[in-house]
Amino acid sequence: MVVAFKEENTVAFKHLFLKGYSGTDEDDYSCSVYTQEDVYESIFFALSQYRQLKNISLGTLGYGENEDNRIGLKVCKQHYKKGTMFPSNETLNIDSDIEKDCVHLDLSKSPQDWKNSSFFRLEFYRLLQVEISFHLKGIDLQTIHSRELPDCYVFQNTITFDNKAHSGKIKIYFDSEAKIEECKDLNISGSIQKNTQYVLVFDAFVIVICLASLILCTRSIVLALRLRKRFLDFFLEKYRRRVCDADQWEFINGWYILVIISDLMTVIGSILKMEIKAKNLTNYDLCSILLGTSTLFVWVGVIRYLGYFQAYNVLILTMQASLPKVLRFCACAGMIYLGYTFCGWIVLGPYHDKFEDLNTVAECLFSLVNGDDMFATFAQIQQKSILVWLFSRLYLYSFISLFIYMILSLFIALITDSYDTIKKYQQNGFPETDLQEFLKERSSKEKYQKESSAFLSCVCCLRRKGSEDHLIPVT
Amino acid sequence: MVVAFKEENTVAFKHLFLKGYSGTDEDDYSCSVYTQEDVYESIFFALSQYRQLKNISLGTLGYGENEDNRIGLKVCKQHYKKGTMFPSNETLNIDSDIEKDCVHLDLSKSPQDWKNSSFFRLEFYRLLQVEISFHLKGIDLQTIHSRELPDCYVFQNTITFDNKAHSGKIKIYFDSEAKIEECKDLNISGSIQKNTQYVLVFDAFVIVICLASLILCTRSIVLALRLRKRFLDFFLEKYRRRVCDADQWEFINGWYILVIISDLMTVIGSILKMEIKAKNLTNYDLCSILLGTSTLFVWVGVIRYLGYFQAYNVLILTMQASLPKVLRFCACAGMIYLGYTFCGWIVLGPYHDKFEDLNTVAECLFSLVNGDDMFATFAQIQQKSILVWLFSRLYLYSFISLFIYMILSLFIALITDSYDTIKKYQQNGFPETDLQEFLKERSSKEKYQKESSAFLSCVCCLRRKGSEDHLIPVT
Amino acid sequence: MVVAFKEENTVAFKHLFLKGYSGTDEDDYSCSVYTQEDVYESIFFALSQYRQLKNISLGTLGYGENEDNRIGLKVCKQHYKKGTMFPSNETLNIDSDIEKDCVHLDLSKSPQDWKNSSFFRLEFYRLLQVEISFHLKGIDLQTIHSRELPDCYVFQNTITFDNKAHSGKIKIYFDSEAKIEECKDLNISGSIQKNTQYVLVFDAFVIVICLASLILCTRSIVLALRLRKRFLDFFLEKYRRRVCDADQWEFINGWYILVIISDLMTVIGSILKMEIKAKNLTNYDLCSILLGTSTLFVWVGVIRYLGYFQAYNVLILTMQASLPKVLRFCACAGMIYLGYTFCGWIVLGPYHDKFEDLNTVAECLFSLVNGDDMFATFAQIQQKSILVWLFSRLYLYSFISLFIYMILSLFIALITDSYDTIKKYQQNGFPETDLQEFLKERSSKEKYQKESSAFLSCVCCLRRKGSEDHLIPVT
Amino acid sequence: MVVAFKEENTVAFKHLFLKGYSGTDEDDYSCSVYTQEDVYESIFFALSQYRQLKNISLGTLGYGENEDNRIGLKVCKQHYKKGTMFPSNETLNIDSDIEKDCVHLDLSKSPQDWKNSSFFRLEFYRLLQVEISFHLKGIDLQTIHSRELPDCYVFQNTITFDNKAHSGKIKIYFDSEAKIEECKDLNISGSIQKNTQYVLVFDAFVIVICLASLILCTRSIVLALRLRKRFLDFFLEKYRRRVCDADQWEFINGWYILVIISDLMTVIGSILKMEIKAKNLTNYDLCSILLGTSTLFVWVGVIRYLGYFQAYNVLILTMQASLPKVLRFCACAGMIYLGYTFCGWIVLGPYHDKFEDLNTVAECLFSLVNGDDMFATFAQIQQKSILVWLFSRLYLYSFISLFIYMILSLFIALITDSYDTIKKYQQNGFPETDLQEFLKERSSKEKYQKESSAFLSCVCCLRRKGSEDHLIPVT
Repeated sequence: MVVAFKEENTVAFKHLFLKGYSGTDEDDYSCSVYTQEDVYESIFFALSQYRQLKNISLGTLGYGENEDNRIGLKVCKQHYKKGTMFPSNETLNIDSDIEKDCVHLDLSKSPQDWKNSSFFRLEFYRLLQVEISFHLKGIDLQTIHSRELPDCYVFQNTITFDNKAHSGKIKIYFDSEAKIEECKDLNISGSIQKNTQYVLVFDAFVIVICLASLILCTRSIVLALRLRKRFLDFFLEKYRRRVCDADQWEFINGWYILVIISDLMTVIGSILKMEIKAKNLTNYDLCSILLGTSTLFVWVGVIRYLGYFQAYNVLILTMQASLPKVLRFCACAGMIYLGYTFCGWIVLGPYHDKFEDLNTVAECLFSLVNGDDMFATFAQIQQKSILVWLFSRLYLYSFISLFIYMILSLFIALITDSYDTIKKYQQNGFPETDLQEFLKERSSKEKYQKESSAFLSCVCCLRRKGSEDHLIPVT
Repeated sequence: MVVAFKEENTVAFKHLFLKGYSGTDEDDYSCSVYTQEDVYESIFFALSQYRQLKNISLGTLGYGENEDNRIGLKVCKQHYKKGTMFPSNETLNIDSDIEKDCVHLDLSKSPQDWKNSSFFRLEFYRLLQVEISFHLKGIDLQTIHSRELPDCYVFQNTITFDNKAHSGKIKIYFDSEAKIEECKDLNISGSIQKNTQYVLVFDAFVIVICLASLILCTRSIVLALRLRKRFLDFFLEKYRRRVCDADQWEFINGWYILVIISDLMTVIGSILKMEIKAKNLTNYDLCSILLGTSTLFVWVGVIRYLGYFQAYNVLILTMQASLPKVLRFCACAGMIYLGYTFCGWIVLGPYHDKFEDLNTVAECLFSLVNGDDMFATFAQIQQKSILVWLFSRLYLYSFISLFIYMILSLFIALITDSYDTIKKYQQNGFPETDLQEFLKERSSKEKYQKESSAFLSCVCCLRRKGSEDHLIPVT
Repeated sequence: MVVAFKEENTVAFKHLFLKGYSGTDEDDYSCSVYTQEDVYESIFFALSQYRQLKNISLGTLGYGENEDNRIGLKVCKQHYKKGTMFPSNETLNIDSDIEKDCVHLDLSKSPQDWKNSSFFRLEFYRLLQVEISFHLKGIDLQTIHSRELPDCYVFQNTITFDNKAHSGKIKIYFDSEAKIEECKDLNISGSIQKNTQYVLVFDAFVIVICLASLILCTRSIVLALRLRKRFLDFFLEKYRRRVCDADQWEFINGWYILVIISDLMTVIGSILKMEIKAKNLTNYDLCSILLGTSTLFVWVGVIRYLGYFQAYNVLILTMQASLPKVLRFCACAGMIYLGYTFCGWIVLGPYHDKFEDLNTVAECLFSLVNGDDMFATFAQIQQKSILVWLFSRLYLYSFISLFIYMILSLFIALITDSYDTIKKYQQNGFPETDLQEFLKERSSKEKYQKESSAFLSCVCCLRRKGSEDHLIPVT
Repeated sequence: MVVAFKEENTVAFKHLFLKGYSGTDEDDYSCSVYTQEDVYESIFFALSQYRQLKNISLGTLGYGENEDNRIGLKVCKQHYKKGTMFPSNETLNIDSDIEKDCVHLDLSKSPQDWKNSSFFRLEFYRLLQVEISFHLKGIDLQTIHSRELPDCYVFQNTITFDNKAHSGKIKIYFDSEAKIEECKDLNISGSIQKNTQYVLVFDAFVIVICLASLILCTRSIVLALRLRKRFLDFFLEKYRRRVCDADQWEFINGWYILVIISDLMTVIGSILKMEIKAKNLTNYDLCSILLGTSTLFVWVGVIRYLGYFQAYNVLILTMQASLPKVLRFCACAGMIYLGYTFCGWIVLGPYHDKFEDLNTVAECLFSLVNGDDMFATFAQIQQKSILVWLFSRLYLYSFISLFIYMILSLFIALITDSYDTIKKYQQNGFPETDLQEFLKERSSKEKYQKESSAFLSCVCCLRRKGSEDHLIPVT
């Protein structure tokens, strides 16, 4: 909800302060102008809108103080120190040092005065940037319904006219940064429901349960490690040989580690959530990532209980068995993938939006393999440079063919193979290791521990799910 | 056709009553305004359009009475009871109770008078909502061609200016609810073709056929259950052991159950259709769902007859054999899928349209696995919060890789395996169960029943198809 | 090129005669109006644009005569014979017979006179349709460059204001039908290159080659059939048993039949092309379909020569072996597919664009299985009717899961299986039939025929490719 | 960066000189006009904007001299020599020779004078084209930050009004060609960081390392070839038989050839890069293609080191083993693919954007197979010609079914088969060749060489990656 409030305010600001704003941003800037007249009009439009803000804005806005504690607009322009330029004669005389002029406009003067001031006579050939910045204060009343106290916001708005490219196109950026502040003087009457205590109690309950699960799992792991030590000693003593690595790892139950990580995340996430409720913190993102990831782990953990049935076990074992092969194969395929990523970035970068950044290239190629719309990607590279066009065709055809026909097929071959192996094992019995023989005698004690903690983590999982339902309306 | 008439009227209303309506809705609201002037203009535009409705509207519209039986507009505004707010000083003095003021505007006064009324002096900082509601009556003349009687409609239109977010952006919703009423005073002359009797006769014929099929199939099932009982007794007596569960299920023919469900649906659907024709009911959706699903089942049922050929049988058997494995595997994969769904909803919900609701998250992830455009999904999460951005990349890459490379491949492995098993069985003979041996002697009687009902359900299927062709122009 | 000229003229007409045309059609109509004023303005705009055509149009246009040999516009309106309607009282008094009034407007009167005529006082509540039709003549000068004679066109334009739905929205259709006529009085001076003879000679050469190939292949087939007869007699005589059906089919070489069909198409297509060049025919579509399909067949025919290599043969044999299984499986899957198609059409038809027609439903489902953007399809069904919404989710999830996970996987299983079978055969030798043993002795004679015709059809293929290059700029 | 500067300038020019330019190009032209008035307005708008350029443009622009060294605009019109045309009578009297009139407009005259000149009285029925061309000079100041010297540009702009189709629609093309020239009179003061030396040193270092790697690899290849010769002689002498071809190829290490190609590309690319930095060359594309491809090869080369591990080796061997089969199969599938490509181009070309060119057809079909949005492709072919519509459905359904269900499945079968073969080899040992036995004795010497060059090429790869990071900001 906080994110939505910020976004809607930013959209409202763009409509209020940008002349001719279409409602959607072009690329990463909001709009662009191409003539000198448009630049002046855009600047003075923003200035006059700011002056009349009270009469036009629909939001709960008021003027805020600048960094230097004054109300009003601050207009800055950057330009090369001095210069003359006659492009017709290819003559350029310029000082590459950059000068910054600023002026503070308060509400006392009329816009007409501003227009006539010499500050606003821009010399475009050496102008780099004009920046209009102002602070606005707002109150988010929406919270009155769900929580007690509304938040006060300070919006640090900056409109930037960017002429750094000197290409005849000035890009207009609108940047709005919102800071949450505690309101100074709140006076809210009327009936407000106060059910937040219940949420807090519930959160605390979740934390307690998760801590219990955490402790039990940790205890299991610790006991298992001790058991391993004793087993190793015993084995060395009795059979005079070392236990192999794979057998040693068997002692550490991977599911317990999953539960421990998930519990830790839930506990930290819940504490963060309570702090956010208490208005001490605003780190929504971290909190939601922690709680979200822990939910994912809890659900994945449920698979373990399915593994107790013979029929489901095949599939889980197959995935376990094929995982190392798949990862190993991914390493190989990853090399080629990385090669294509770098190559695409270097060559097609300036000609294609999707190849501008390394990470977008990676995403684009990944999407292409998995069935994204290819034709659009093909079509976007026009025939401007015949060399690049030919290269792009070769590049895309070879990449897609290689990955979809060769590599995806190999994945299928790998997993079909693992599945057949596991199925044969299940029919003929798995090859028994030393440990498994040994365990047949000793397993009774461990089993008891496993079950008790399994029950607790299940309860915890149910609670956690409930807790998320409460979290969502808050964020 | 009824749906289309409602939709077109709603679109026409939006063009008539919303100022600056672009033709397509933004998000879930129709349009939005950002300045006080625009709000007033939008309100008075709607009011004046309503007054002149007769002279501008192209439809067959007339004023309808409100709930309180008066013709005219009802304008309501909701606001906080009282309050003063100085965002600049972060001072807020507000009563969180909500007050609702309403005014009824009839056609006697001119819009100029309305503008001057104090009701329309809005205090935006405490305004929550303005609602303009009015009733219009219309007649759907289109039905004259296909059926005898045109329908009369009452449109309950509501224009809502929603300022609950207090974010500087007022969203305008247009809501039109259409009720079908019988026209009071119809007087239609001219030649009208009256072929509806034939359709009714046809519908009745379909119902009769389906009932016959239904009864025969039910009888088969009942006989089969009796046979099973006798078989169980006989077996227990003769061989002194219980028949296994799988063998017991063999008695109940799944195809018959399919036919019964399909027949039931057709009968209920056809009755609903006749009622709709007779203008007693308007529940088009339920009727079409029933008839549609029954058609689907009839077509699926045809597969059974293909199963009588050896070559086709392989495929049907493979699908049957792999189904339990696939479902079991889906349960495992479903856990991970659910985990990702919840996790994506919690973390990415506020940043991405496709992750707003739990069901859209599920759809989005399902689509991604099956080759939807991934790049767009990647690109929509901008780099606003670097933490969320990183998480989203990790989340999407891991999800897509896991599902496309591991889980889809396992599906293929599962089905290839089932196919090989069935093929081997067909070459070497299926492993015979007790029941099959037993059946060799007793099967003659059942076979006769099977064939007779098969013929009937086939006839019924042909009829039903015809019946749908008639249904479509009606809906 | 002819298609492009027609299309561009239609677009130009829409810009000239439709008021407020945006450049792209909405749905299947060009634009729509919602108020009475807009209707009148749209009508009179079209009329006045027609009057001033000479001064505004950029094309080579002149007025053409109507069906009744008069120059001018013909405006027709359709309405119910008489009627009064008071939707407020739900009173309707209408004669459902339709009346049609027409008026002919020539250029002598001014548009002002037209506006005042009583014909243009429309009663919208009983109006069904207004139709403005006029003929324009144009000359396609573009052909001067490539061919000798420019074409004369008659454009039969009709602007239809469709109010049949009486929903408050009048849809405006623009329909332009272009007929090619020979120009009466052509007088072209200047130097024109006359290289069309070469194209004709080339076409004739292609026809001759294809006819030769056709005759040789037919001869081969005839000889093969005679051989079969003799073989059957001989076999019956010698071994006293009938030859099995599969062996009998071996005599008829499928490739020859392909070549014969392809040659026939090329010959007919080339003749059509020459006729089109000679301006005797205008059936471009049939000509291009014939030539295009024959090209496809020629390329497919090349595969046969690849089959002479052992390594390539595996693949061709696999495809041949798996084809009947695949087709048989398609029959099964097709049942379910048809079921879903009908079901989707009946239930979702009124709510979703892609489900409006049976063939679009089929296309939509086919696309979904093969990786079309699913999310858009999901999202387009809004939550208007919760029942339909739920049904649509169930419908789409079940369909996609069934087809992508079960049926596509079975295809892979089928083909993998066929491949393994063929590979085993190649290693261990194919199971020999009676025919193959017999053929070892007799094959020498047939081989000679095969090779000679192979050479000819190869030459023909090369020629045909060249001929297409000439065809394209013409169409 | 240079590409971006050119593009932004072109966009700015379009906004300045084209009346009613919407910001995005329609198809391949920028905008289009449909009435005579619009044509005149568009022409005079461009002329007057050119006159006032100084006062409206935001860029660093000045007038440049034409080819004939005059400042000003050159307007040319092409039309048929003479002609009269009465489309109403289908009378045409035209001289098909084309005449070209030009006029030079300098800045001395006012636009009003231009308007009155007889040159601008266009006769549209015989007009073919109006061309306005002018030269502008600009300076790219952006380079001041990153490099010492700003570039001077000459923009050769041409606005073309294309009426060749005579279809009533004049397409307006805007073409801007930018030439980089050295600025004549540069005078830049201020502090400029001069770190380009380091980049040059780094480039030189890369070149040296790559040359070393190149020489070592070449030496290895030469030595290997000598070794082969000796081995062949020795083998012939000792065992009295020739070594088979596959064994002979074993001597030439494919990886070395990859490294040599990659090194060569890096060296040439780096030299080009240094030349570009030194402003002697502007061939960015070739340079980036060379460096990009070499990076791809380097990454692919890394796979070789993974091949030293047993587990990774399976996958690489599988890919190696399946490659010839896959290529062979591609040849077969390619025939059908080519057939469909030609056929689609011939038949659907005039009706569908994606089928206009041979290469777009190929891309479209390739995309369809790999999961592009099919429905859009289906939907774009409207029901104008029922024959073509039917053909298109048949064409698309058959193509997609054939390729997705048959051919993609066969790829999977091929690769699964290869994987099984390789796995069996690894378990049971590969079949040993003569060479491998022989090598066991002699391999010690070669191994040393292999490792030394491996180290070097690895170092080189690291360096090259660094070098690309520097390259990017330059291009």
